[in-house]
Amino acid sequence: MRIFIVGFGCVGQSFAKLLREQSAALYREHAITPRIVGVADSRGAAVSERGLDPQELVDLKDRGSSVADHPDYGVRATDHGRLIRESDADLLVEASPSRMDAPAGAIDNIKAALSSGMHVVTVNKAPLAVAMPALIELAEYNRVALRFSGTVGGGTPMLRMAQVSALGDEVVRIRGILNGTTNYILSKMHETGADFDAVLAEAVELGYAESDPSADIDGIDAATKVVILANVVLNQRATLSDVAVEGIRGMERSRIEDAAKQGMVLKLIGEVGEELRVEPQLVPRGDALDVSKNLNALSVTLRSSGDITLIGRGAGGVETATAILRDMLDIWQTVGE
Amino acid sequence: MRIFIVGFGCVGQSFAKLLREQSAALYREHAITPRIVGVADSRGAAVSERGLDPQELVDLKDRGSSVADHPDYGVRATDHGRLIRESDADLLVEASPSRMDAPAGAIDNIKAALSSGMHVVTVNKAPLAVAMPALIELAEYNRVALRFSGTVGGGTPMLRMAQVSALGDEVVRIRGILNGTTNYILSKMHETGADFDAVLAEAVELGYAESDPSADIDGIDAATKVVILANVVLNQRATLSDVAVEGIRGMERSRIEDAAKQGMVLKLIGEVGEELRVEPQLVPRGDALDVSKNLNALSVTLRSSGDITLIGRGAGGVETATAILRDMLDIWQTVGE
Repeated sequence: MRIFIVGFGCVGQSFAKLLREQSAALYREHAITPRIVGVADSRGAAVSERGLDPQELVDLKDRGSSVADHPDYGVRATDHGRLIRESDADLLVEASPSRMDAPAGAIDNIKAALSSGMHVVTVNKAPLAVAMPALIELAEYNRVALRFSGTVGGGTPMLRMAQVSALGDEVVRIRGILNGTTNYILSKMHETGADFDAVLAEAVELGYAESDPSADIDGIDAATKVVILANVVLNQRATLSDVAVEGIRGMERSRIEDAAKQGMVLKLIGEVGEELRVEPQLVPRGDALDVSKNLNALSVTLRSSGDITLIGRGAGGVETATAILRDMLDIWQTVGE
Repeated sequence: MRIFIVGFGCVGQSFAKLLREQSAALYREHAITPRIVGVADSRGAAVSERGLDPQELVDLKDRGSSVADHPDYGVRATDHGRLIRESDADLLVEASPSRMDAPAGAIDNIKAALSSGMHVVTVNKAPLAVAMPALIELAEYNRVALRFSGTVGGGTPMLRMAQVSALGDEVVRIRGILNGTTNYILSKMHETGADFDAVLAEAVELGYAESDPSADIDGIDAATKVVILANVVLNQRATLSDVAVEGIRGMERSRIEDAAKQGMVLKLIGEVGEELRVEPQLVPRGDALDVSKNLNALSVTLRSSGDITLIGRGAGGVETATAILRDMLDIWQTVGE
């Protein structure tokens, strides 16, 4: 399997390292010999049909260089779409950061790959948020796979759980804690009684929130996951504009205190049902969705089997890299050989 | 797809009704036309290559009759193995009650089917508890599928979640609340401070426990699930005799009180790791495994992605019937056509 990776930050590098660590097991258990034939970052790319050494690429990044600085295979071209079309890869891994305000580049990359008959695994949510129905259609038209299990729940297989539970039963509704940063902030406010701004500042300092935390605290990140769930599990052809979004920016301490008085906790809930929404909701203390710290949780309400809830870490470079590997193996088992 | 059902109690009947209710959807979404060509209970069978009407069979049972009393297709034969071998079914559904003290009959049924080239879906745990490695081998030898997702977690897809999470990662350990009856009893003792015997009597009265609750309260039911998880997820060729089992029969109130004083709850935990065991363990209040009432929970600890926990109802006729349907669809998608 020949792989082209776009985006070589924490997730992309973790995936490249994982491929190398697991190479013996991948061959033994799945008869796969993955080869990285291209890696692109914002400054260029490294391309070799004979395969690139993951460690060499990671070393370049560790030194603050671009993969384009690779002594033998570096190229300065930053037209990723063209690089993808010219590659002989079987699989594109789209691992560039989710830029909700600028999804166009990643959409182009995915379209270039699908149109060239490549399978795609994306952990970048931005293209899915705005163009998921079109991308699914393009993949079907070209008879290739488009997978994105790392976009919801990181390494926790939430999409798969939701899809499996729908087989033989009917999904009535999905509710979830889909963003770890906001769950960390609300949990801390409940525990310590501190102000939103103080907790947010601490979260940024500890690395639980990004320096620009808007996508998290305004509910946009959770809303993209609502879009993905609606498309995949409920077959709704939705995009981000179909989601009613209310975030937690500037959440008043009094709302937290009122919730606690009623034996409830305030959580940022993403909901997929007749309507799609993200909003702060009251959840009974001890409920399956009352998860602590930066955990994520997904509850699927089934017609026959009632509520099924999956809880786990929702992010992290290594965790998300395992989700890419899982998608890759799944594609291999379904369509490969 | 031609189906032979052995065991026509609550689960078997729910499955037959589900097939009828879902027949249009099954044809539309999966191009399957399931036909029940045989149903056996303890007193005989009804057999027809042209297909049996589920409602007629359920009506017979509602009147206290056996399926052997079917006016057109009833037969008095109770040699299920022979009926299975003589049937032209593609799939055996083994839904007779789990008799841990007498697994031989169900083992024979499953062997008869696998040897005849039939796929098997069993929700009966007894044959798996004592003979799982041999049955898996027999299925592989005959190139047919053996599925049992309803045996762990009822309608909650716990085995599938554990298997999926293992792809691309490494399962270090599995811990779970695998028996709803004992979880109900321990939860009630914590809540009310009542005696074990009083809570058990109430559980029997409410239908949460069977009139002979030994398999539940002595930990045997949970231990069979430990065996199944060990075989399927960790590839250990284990049987019931490999599990160290301690149940909760006669649990002292003082142990519950001591746990509560430490901010803990006492739970009956099934554990799959280097050793296989079932025993009462302390769990921090609010932990993912601190589930209430008769819920089940399964936590998988992964090398990269940490703990993933799935929570849901663990039993129920309708729920377990959806698990059979899910297995059937899965077989169809994997090997069918």
